[in-house]
Amino acid sequence: MSSIQRDIIVREVGLRDGLQIHPTFMPTADKLTWIQNEFQAGVGEIEVTSFVPPKLIPQFADATEVCQGALKHKDLVVSALIPNLKGAQRGIELGVRKLNYVVSVSKTHNLKNVRRERDASMQDFKAIVDLIKTLPQTQRPLIGAGLSTALGCSYEGKIAVTEVVLCAEQLLDAGADEIVVCDTVGYADPAQTRAVLKAVLAVAGRVPVAAHFHDTRGTGLANVTAALDCGIQYFDASLGGLGGCPFAPGASGNIVMEDLCFMLDAMGLKTGVNLDALLSTREAMSKSLSDLKLYGQLAKAGLPNGFVSTYQAQAA
Amino acid sequence: MSSIQRDIIVREVGLRDGLQIHPTFMPTADKLTWIQNEFQAGVGEIEVTSFVPPKLIPQFADATEVCQGALKHKDLVVSALIPNLKGAQRGIELGVRKLNYVVSVSKTHNLKNVRRERDASMQDFKAIVDLIKTLPQTQRPLIGAGLSTALGCSYEGKIAVTEVVLCAEQLLDAGADEIVVCDTVGYADPAQTRAVLKAVLAVAGRVPVAAHFHDTRGTGLANVTAALDCGIQYFDASLGGLGGCPFAPGASGNIVMEDLCFMLDAMGLKTGVNLDALLSTREAMSKSLSDLKLYGQLAKAGLPNGFVSTYQAQAA
Repeated sequence: MSSIQRDIIVREVGLRDGLQIHPTFMPTADKLTWIQNEFQAGVGEIEVTSFVPPKLIPQFADATEVCQGALKHKDLVVSALIPNLKGAQRGIELGVRKLNYVVSVSKTHNLKNVRRERDASMQDFKAIVDLIKTLPQTQRPLIGAGLSTALGCSYEGKIAVTEVVLCAEQLLDAGADEIVVCDTVGYADPAQTRAVLKAVLAVAGRVPVAAHFHDTRGTGLANVTAALDCGIQYFDASLGGLGGCPFAPGASGNIVMEDLCFMLDAMGLKTGVNLDALLSTREAMSKSLSDLKLYGQLAKAGLPNGFVSTYQAQAA
Repeated sequence: MSSIQRDIIVREVGLRDGLQIHPTFMPTADKLTWIQNEFQAGVGEIEVTSFVPPKLIPQFADATEVCQGALKHKDLVVSALIPNLKGAQRGIELGVRKLNYVVSVSKTHNLKNVRRERDASMQDFKAIVDLIKTLPQTQRPLIGAGLSTALGCSYEGKIAVTEVVLCAEQLLDAGADEIVVCDTVGYADPAQTRAVLKAVLAVAGRVPVAAHFHDTRGTGLANVTAALDCGIQYFDASLGGLGGCPFAPGASGNIVMEDLCFMLDAMGLKTGVNLDALLSTREAMSKSLSDLKLYGQLAKAGLPNGFVSTYQAQAA
């Protein structure tokens, strides 16, 4: 798998962002099958779980087993969400390749979401980076820093670009290996996406900037288009658009992995993903739980007649 | 309504493109209520029907009544699809403001769709323009020319940009007042959209170029984003995404009017549309028939907290 050429890196976040608000526990074996299938379909990075206490989110009670199972795929970048220093310690012990930490740009959202002031969350991030730095170079996980509500907040509404940049700078100064600009509640439009991403890219230097869009109001792939224009090469998505929005019951969640990969592929951008295998992965995953609500158009419409994927072109 | 400022003109096509494959007849009164509500919500142009023989599409058996009813709204641009010269004559007699004619760039699709060679359809278009020219200047309807399958064909697959340009030139030479680039089967991606639209704009000169996208594979609003970059100011859409794709049963149809208007509005582009009134129009329309399948995310998620529409800003 390591010889796969990729112009764009798509990252599966459904096992974390998709499942975290799902009421039913997905069996650990099904999670691992999903990870294996999607990795084999060509998705090279998967956020497999969250180290939040199972008391808060029972869905992640099997975080250890899921990480251990996922880590058997040698070339897969296994990442996990860490809510705090303790989560970071667990991730490090398990050998997770990448730890994802999140701070909300919206101070209100940060307070409601993790019951901490934003500044305190920034301090926690520094402590996590300091912990990582105590490890031998070869054992250090990458540390990703997500800017939640960077494109709008259910409590505060519009978020100023200057606030996003301020937070990005604090995380970069602290030592983030990646900045993830997140439209947590699906408020973004392509114009604002461009404005925010350009501003963050301007301060990020050589640190990669990723985009994490939700399709809550139908603008997900439009925002991807705007982000591509800015030069963004890293996108989060979830298989079948699994997930939702706690602020908009019934609304869709993350952008749909299959639709994203199809669009990128059609644009001639190599994702390394075999679309047929991805659709099969969706099909298998959809059978895991009876109450899963999946989204996405490609699965309903199928590939265009005569469609030649960049994946096939590459393999030929 | 004529004092409404618009950066972008959105045009409702659901009464034609949405209903034409719908198996159940929507009562004429419901169609007229839909037209009235959507016009009052600020949509300035509505394709209200098609002049195809009712034997072929019973949904349009009330074309005359629908046109007459719609034409009572003085400032509404009432348009109708015309399949041929006879349809043009009907439209002219009724006083329809704009006649929309369609040719498929794909020769195979043209043959299957209207049982005519593409060249013959081009000849028909010339005859229609010639008929219009016999009318006194003040009585002439505008004549729009749609390039169907311009971004892909269910029979032929990829369509060469050169073929699209060739067809556009023929229609422009014949006297089209507008060129509509149509992704009839939802194959388009933002990169191809840019390539095709730039090429068509280059030959269109001062004749307006509109875009007609379907969301069959989830890329509809992404393609709108690409089209906006090219300078396109005219977009077709259908309320609730009403419609579908005869080549992909179960798949979605035209891009969703509410989601489109929300995105444009969020980008600071004036559409003249009151989003709340548009959502109410959808709600009322959805009750017309029990078997209507509607799409769209805005209706599920609602407007962002603190959202200030350009419409409200304009009214204030």
